[in-house]
Amino acid sequence: MQKHDAIAFIGLGAMGGAMAARLVAHQFRVAGFDLRAEARARLAAVGGHDAASVAEAARTADTLIVMTVNAEQAEDVLFAQGGIEALPAGGTVVLMATCAPARVAAMAARVIGAGRRFIDAPVSGGVVGAEAGTLSIMAAAPAAVMDTHRRLLETLGSGLVHVGENPGQGAAMKIVNQLLCGVHIAVAAEGLAFAERQGIDPALALGILSGSAASSWMLKNRGPRMVEEGTAVTSAVDIFVKDLGLVLDAGRSAKMGLPLASLAHQAFLAASGMGFGNRDDSQVIATYRALAAKAAGA
Amino acid sequence: MQKHDAIAFIGLGAMGGAMAARLVAHQFRVAGFDLRAEARARLAAVGGHDAASVAEAARTADTLIVMTVNAEQAEDVLFAQGGIEALPAGGTVVLMATCAPARVAAMAARVIGAGRRFIDAPVSGGVVGAEAGTLSIMAAAPAAVMDTHRRLLETLGSGLVHVGENPGQGAAMKIVNQLLCGVHIAVAAEGLAFAERQGIDPALALGILSGSAASSWMLKNRGPRMVEEGTAVTSAVDIFVKDLGLVLDAGRSAKMGLPLASLAHQAFLAASGMGFGNRDDSQVIATYRALAAKAAGA
Repeated sequence: MQKHDAIAFIGLGAMGGAMAARLVAHQFRVAGFDLRAEARARLAAVGGHDAASVAEAARTADTLIVMTVNAEQAEDVLFAQGGIEALPAGGTVVLMATCAPARVAAMAARVIGAGRRFIDAPVSGGVVGAEAGTLSIMAAAPAAVMDTHRRLLETLGSGLVHVGENPGQGAAMKIVNQLLCGVHIAVAAEGLAFAERQGIDPALALGILSGSAASSWMLKNRGPRMVEEGTAVTSAVDIFVKDLGLVLDAGRSAKMGLPLASLAHQAFLAASGMGFGNRDDSQVIATYRALAAKAAGA
Repeated sequence: MQKHDAIAFIGLGAMGGAMAARLVAHQFRVAGFDLRAEARARLAAVGGHDAASVAEAARTADTLIVMTVNAEQAEDVLFAQGGIEALPAGGTVVLMATCAPARVAAMAARVIGAGRRFIDAPVSGGVVGAEAGTLSIMAAAPAAVMDTHRRLLETLGSGLVHVGENPGQGAAMKIVNQLLCGVHIAVAAEGLAFAERQGIDPALALGILSGSAASSWMLKNRGPRMVEEGTAVTSAVDIFVKDLGLVLDAGRSAKMGLPLASLAHQAFLAASGMGFGNRDDSQVIATYRALAAKAAGA
């Protein structure tokens, strides 16, 4: 066993749960914690240890993976719930949640100041990628820290890229990634709703677009859920309300206008405002169907 | 020889020239015309006949393919330059240029009224697809007309879809296709320029995005030309100024708001206004670099 093989995994949601289960299946010792008992139970069912607290999970770990919904929760795990204090000195925090770059840099400084190491390592690829170990991982940390955690990260993702030495650079890359992902979902919805409006069968349109230069990963993945009735939720509308919000915050920090990201954010906000915030993010098409709707009597 | 094997091919630009050459290579008899002598010479060099006029090309043809830049040129070919009069009665016009749906329907009515048949068959896939015969073809015509031209269309494209019976429906589908293509190019530029602004190597960013859920056909195809210096032009900025203009015109006709398409159009317009209209459409990134530029002394 290498020294980094004992993992504390905090945040066992759709993504985190799949990632933690994958680590267990690849012989990592995983102690997991999530506020929801059913998430802890799922980890225990696949052979992980369900810890009673963040601190209990971290106490015996070499590496503390944080896969919370956002930066607020990550800071809470590390600094309010005792994650950093419990993690043995010299241990490594791997932050995999999507957070604002400046906030990641601040967390890293505090963790490193407390004598632990830090890898900024957000991911892309969704639950499917988490289960299959095909996530893209955008990692920023000194090369020596990267090297000792390569086996861990390559178990979670097939697309590991070392973006830079400074924590925050991985987050910045993830922000660019989410910019494209969010706009791609929104434009798929705009296009498919426009096909419907023009009297084209949207399933036929999706088939054509998916095989042409108009294709995108998101079109192929989310498009089917835009043209068929369904209730599956792999990632919610409100996740992109949050993530495109982070994109725009980063744009403000950098003082750069991001017009398409800004407009896509409005589309997700409008869908959330219609009450669809917890639905699958493909349902941003509701915004466009509203733009295309004929008023009663029109 | 089947009856539809004699082809008049009008419009021998980057796309049309490659398509006509492919037909020659597949044993179609092709008489081609283009206003530019060098385009005609290229067809002659691969074994086609370079006609002296639209009418000469059409006179001995069963099928008249129109691959002009826009609807104005297509109407000129058919009705001013004598294409329809020269085409033997019962012959078929295959309109493959990108045009507004209502305009295609009007052209079709006039062609059919003159005793010829009509297939609305715009394409997607670029010069690469034209050369390889892998174009997506969005065809609208009565099933019987489609059936007699299937071998021709399947020689040009591997993705032939019969969208509907009525000319204009193919054009409507192409409009949706261009909506996604145009926004995908613009958002690739927005994302890569934002990566640059945040200090991330744009080539590294492109590699990550191309392998993640942020990927699109356009990102992979145009992205390399956004991050490297180069002067190759496969499709110009002004083509998307035109095509997204058609998208917005179709949105007006259908009375549907298309916010992302509208914003992407602005990005291409701005790049054209900077003097980049004839450059490769990847150079829409100039608009975003302007948004990200630091003023002198700032």
